[in-house]
Amino acid sequence: MVHCSLERMKDKIATFSRFGDTGHGGITRFSLSSEVLAARAEFKKRMAAIGATVVTDDMANMYATLPGTEPLKAIVSGSHLDSVRQGGNYDGVLGVMSAMEALETIATEKIPHRHPLTAMVWTNEEGARFEPAMMSSGVICGKFTKEKMLASVAKDQPGYTFGEALAASGYVGDEANRLSPDKQCALIELHIEQGPVLEAEGYDIGVVDGVCGMINYEFTFIGQADHAGTTPMKYRKDALYAAVKAIQYLHDELDKLDPALVYTTGKISAHPNIHTIIPDEVKFTIDARHYDPAVIEQVLAVIRKMPDEIVGCKVSYAEAWARKSVAYDPLLVDTVEESAVACNYSHMRIHSGPGHDAQYVADILPTSMIFVPSVEGHSHCELEYTPAEACAKGVDVLIQTLLSLDRKLG
Amino acid sequence: MVHCSLERMKDKIATFSRFGDTGHGGITRFSLSSEVLAARAEFKKRMAAIGATVVTDDMANMYATLPGTEPLKAIVSGSHLDSVRQGGNYDGVLGVMSAMEALETIATEKIPHRHPLTAMVWTNEEGARFEPAMMSSGVICGKFTKEKMLASVAKDQPGYTFGEALAASGYVGDEANRLSPDKQCALIELHIEQGPVLEAEGYDIGVVDGVCGMINYEFTFIGQADHAGTTPMKYRKDALYAAVKAIQYLHDELDKLDPALVYTTGKISAHPNIHTIIPDEVKFTIDARHYDPAVIEQVLAVIRKMPDEIVGCKVSYAEAWARKSVAYDPLLVDTVEESAVACNYSHMRIHSGPGHDAQYVADILPTSMIFVPSVEGHSHCELEYTPAEACAKGVDVLIQTLLSLDRKLG
Repeated sequence: MVHCSLERMKDKIATFSRFGDTGHGGITRFSLSSEVLAARAEFKKRMAAIGATVVTDDMANMYATLPGTEPLKAIVSGSHLDSVRQGGNYDGVLGVMSAMEALETIATEKIPHRHPLTAMVWTNEEGARFEPAMMSSGVICGKFTKEKMLASVAKDQPGYTFGEALAASGYVGDEANRLSPDKQCALIELHIEQGPVLEAEGYDIGVVDGVCGMINYEFTFIGQADHAGTTPMKYRKDALYAAVKAIQYLHDELDKLDPALVYTTGKISAHPNIHTIIPDEVKFTIDARHYDPAVIEQVLAVIRKMPDEIVGCKVSYAEAWARKSVAYDPLLVDTVEESAVACNYSHMRIHSGPGHDAQYVADILPTSMIFVPSVEGHSHCELEYTPAEACAKGVDVLIQTLLSLDRKLG
Repeated sequence: MVHCSLERMKDKIATFSRFGDTGHGGITRFSLSSEVLAARAEFKKRMAAIGATVVTDDMANMYATLPGTEPLKAIVSGSHLDSVRQGGNYDGVLGVMSAMEALETIATEKIPHRHPLTAMVWTNEEGARFEPAMMSSGVICGKFTKEKMLASVAKDQPGYTFGEALAASGYVGDEANRLSPDKQCALIELHIEQGPVLEAEGYDIGVVDGVCGMINYEFTFIGQADHAGTTPMKYRKDALYAAVKAIQYLHDELDKLDPALVYTTGKISAHPNIHTIIPDEVKFTIDARHYDPAVIEQVLAVIRKMPDEIVGCKVSYAEAWARKSVAYDPLLVDTVEESAVACNYSHMRIHSGPGHDAQYVADILPTSMIFVPSVEGHSHCELEYTPAEACAKGVDVLIQTLLSLDRKLG
């Protein structure tokens, strides 16, 4: 069994953690910022050092490829280097470092492989500076038009577009280099779980078989603003109390559905939001996710059954967005699972709740993902942590999966 | 029976509505602003026109006095000219215009009176620009120290103090002119109800027998912020759901208390308030008011009985402020009631929910208030409205009350 180098992984984690270091255990490394460009240079340097050829496409996605022994399509692994503001040292970058480590191990130990093997960096996964998230994989997989994306304006710099940042980055390459079924045959993305399940259930590896579908709705309650001291209870139309009743209704009804359903009322606002005035408008969001579209349909039925009026307030709702479930490729999912078994690491099948570049790629290439545990489930914060030893187990499974696919795929 | 002049009242309402006119049916007339100074000049001009002597005290409160036929203390009526942002044309200013109209009627119709009669303007009742509310009555009645009030900084102008605005106003007079039991013997403040009760119950006049006591508490719920897509329901500590349970608990328990109790959860905030993150901190306020301190004590008991932990979240609360009930002077309250009877206007006894300058004055002088109906209970907004005819009924009762007190008081 091939093992990666724990020391080399630790060195990579320490090195990449410096690019955008906040000084408080995390990083702020926005897409196409000087911090992310430094991280890209490090990727390029290390990949060149093992003899990989590094090219970029027109969205500045990077591809570092070790040639195979046969004229076959490449097997790809990778993720992104950009982060949210005050993010952690694992979301995204761990998938890049794992792909690097896999190629470094295979190159250093001179393990023969028929297919070219590619380590990849996606441009702008987080969307923290330029919206939307998963921008470049979205362009390449036909979700977004490139023109519209080039016009996306930096949240931190009025008028400065993604197109300008891209041109200034020095990483714009040929559109012909884009990931495509003509040149690549499979993609595996390793990522931290970003949730508590693997740690709580005691598993080393999450074998990701798909991405949960989700819906996001915003509810609005319209009541009547009146003075807290002058309006008897019987005359009130309290929009906050109506919202409270509605949230309780959603909990009561949604808790009857499949226990794997997750739903969240994360955002609430009240108007005028003054302690001495009865709120006349309250809004809250509900985000609901499940792998089975039938369960999402049940959630919608619960929403539709909500009364039009609660405690005298008018209730309305609108879909903010929705995402269909994505099923990863069964052969690749099975291969990840077999690889975990071969490595003797404990593992469970899991769906991804958050979105990843891999879910767009699943539309054009056989795709799967490997999750490693997130300590206490923290993510998108400086507390985000996965011990190097747990990361290395993920890399071992990734190496095993790449080599197994190298044997299985034509 | 003496009646005021409806035409003269309509003219005053139209005239004062121009000072700070927002163009949308209301006014923004902050304390000591140029808009309020124009209104003060109008008050001074009209009071001088009927032969009243106008003086101010060191807090710029204005006193326009018609001399009486005997060397007695003055009977006072008045309110304030300042408004909240985008307030209405009645809150405060109606009490000033009513006092003016009462004096104008008495002067014009040459009605003899033993006591001096004073129409009064309080400086900065709303606290919309310089906190706190009821600032000048608070200083004069010993609630606040003048030095601290002079240092109060404008909310709309960093560094600019109430003291500077006062000095620039041109209305600073002698401290010896302050309202005091040495020179005044009673105060009646006419005000709009700012609530729906008089209109809904079909009464012309509210005979205000006191001000409700109130408490204001802020609750805090501490949970755990986690990703909406990765955290199974069983691992969650959802601070918003805890707050929802708490608000429902408060409604369930407080609704069992006296039906005259009013309570309001007017302000809520969630952190980080992002639709894809389970809130880790939610705060909301509760404002509860009742005339009987025993009922307020029952509210506190309900609050104290709240569990320390709800759905895994830590619950805490703190008093933001509290106000004791104020009972108005029985002789004055009875006199207002008798005056409403004499005028043949329908009337009910009522407590004031909001605070008014009169409640501070009640500590140093016999005091009461007269309420007139607010259409649909609107107040502190541009929709605030009381028909001129309904205002005039209030003025009639005020005139009757002043003349009756003139006979009764020594």
